[in-house]
Amino acid sequence: MRLAELSERSGVSAATIKYYLREGLLPPGRRITATQAEYDEEHLRRLRLVRALIQVGRVPVSSAKEVLTALRDEELGWSERLGTAVWSLPHGPAPDDADPVTASARRTADELLEHLGWSHRGGDGVAPVAPPYEMLVTAITTLARLGYPCSAADLEPYARGMERLAVDDLDLVERYAPEEQVEAAVALTVLYEPVLLGLRRLAQGEEARRRFAGQ
Amino acid sequence: MRLAELSERSGVSAATIKYYLREGLLPPGRRITATQAEYDEEHLRRLRLVRALIQVGRVPVSSAKEVLTALRDEELGWSERLGTAVWSLPHGPAPDDADPVTASARRTADELLEHLGWSHRGGDGVAPVAPPYEMLVTAITTLARLGYPCSAADLEPYARGMERLAVDDLDLVERYAPEEQVEAAVALTVLYEPVLLGLRRLAQGEEARRRFAGQ
Repeated sequence: MRLAELSERSGVSAATIKYYLREGLLPPGRRITATQAEYDEEHLRRLRLVRALIQVGRVPVSSAKEVLTALRDEELGWSERLGTAVWSLPHGPAPDDADPVTASARRTADELLEHLGWSHRGGDGVAPVAPPYEMLVTAITTLARLGYPCSAADLEPYARGMERLAVDDLDLVERYAPEEQVEAAVALTVLYEPVLLGLRRLAQGEEARRRFAGQ
Repeated sequence: MRLAELSERSGVSAATIKYYLREGLLPPGRRITATQAEYDEEHLRRLRLVRALIQVGRVPVSSAKEVLTALRDEELGWSERLGTAVWSLPHGPAPDDADPVTASARRTADELLEHLGWSHRGGDGVAPVAPPYEMLVTAITTLARLGYPCSAADLEPYARGMERLAVDDLDLVERYAPEEQVEAAVALTVLYEPVLLGLRRLAQGEEARRRFAGQ
């Protein structure tokens, strides 16, 4: 397909596609004349992943390039490639280990993960410490600093809830063809976040009405 | 207590407290000399709510003022006050009803909510349409536009998961004294979001390792 069709089918403007080509985020098309190139389904899939990372996941262009390099690394197994892509997403501010509240938050997070039998380490070729573990530590620190300390026991129902939903998350990913699954995992991880948060606020409203009707 | 102690106990700088006082987000202290005022526990609680709204929830100062006014409205019941506060939080971009994909997303959201028996309406004194319902419609629209359409049946496990967690959310809120519950509801709604999203990404990693070990 030509650039115009790639743009049409991906929903990404021609100018943005040209920018991605210049930055090396997309491999060049097969040149057919001095001014025209031909693109294929692989370009379309790659473009969808780039867009999922940059436009939806707000990953900086430089990080997106690193992710795409890792995804081409044949030495990595499938689950490491998936982890590399999802963990490259921004995870918010890193924990401030100069703050004693952070040390206490790490103990809470470690106690929770040990109890659940979850790992907080990345795999080979991925970050040595899982970025979502750092995200969790920062969140627990903020709660404590604002006067809402939480224990591993307080967090357990949330972890169990997410454990159940991870089965649905991966089922959704597995609906896609193997070569589309990494991009689907990144896109669905990010795109389901507002779905979850919106549903949570609606569910809280229902539960509040149920508990406090007439108060 | 003096301003310095209010700052110390709330973790909010004296300059920021003075700004909140000037903007009317905090009621003035009891004046004891020409230059000094005395603040009480009610100021501390109000300050924590203002900070939860503005610093954590990223609510604009003008909206925070509206929320605080609604919270003082004695005509509203407790659950409406809670709803007003939580629903004043930013819910992301509004659905674009000029787009036909949005109409389809509304049908999906309506089908889901009808099936669950949830309301998408606000109560009296609150928004006529629940802001998290609009947030959900926008998220479903984005999924469809990026090539990941979802049905009400796809969303149901997520809604059921959030329904279960709303019980834990409200249990946490009810640990606080009645006069602290609205601020706790706002703070915990916002502060548990990164907890949930971090736990979800960790749980996905666990589930991916379980499913695709060695691949």
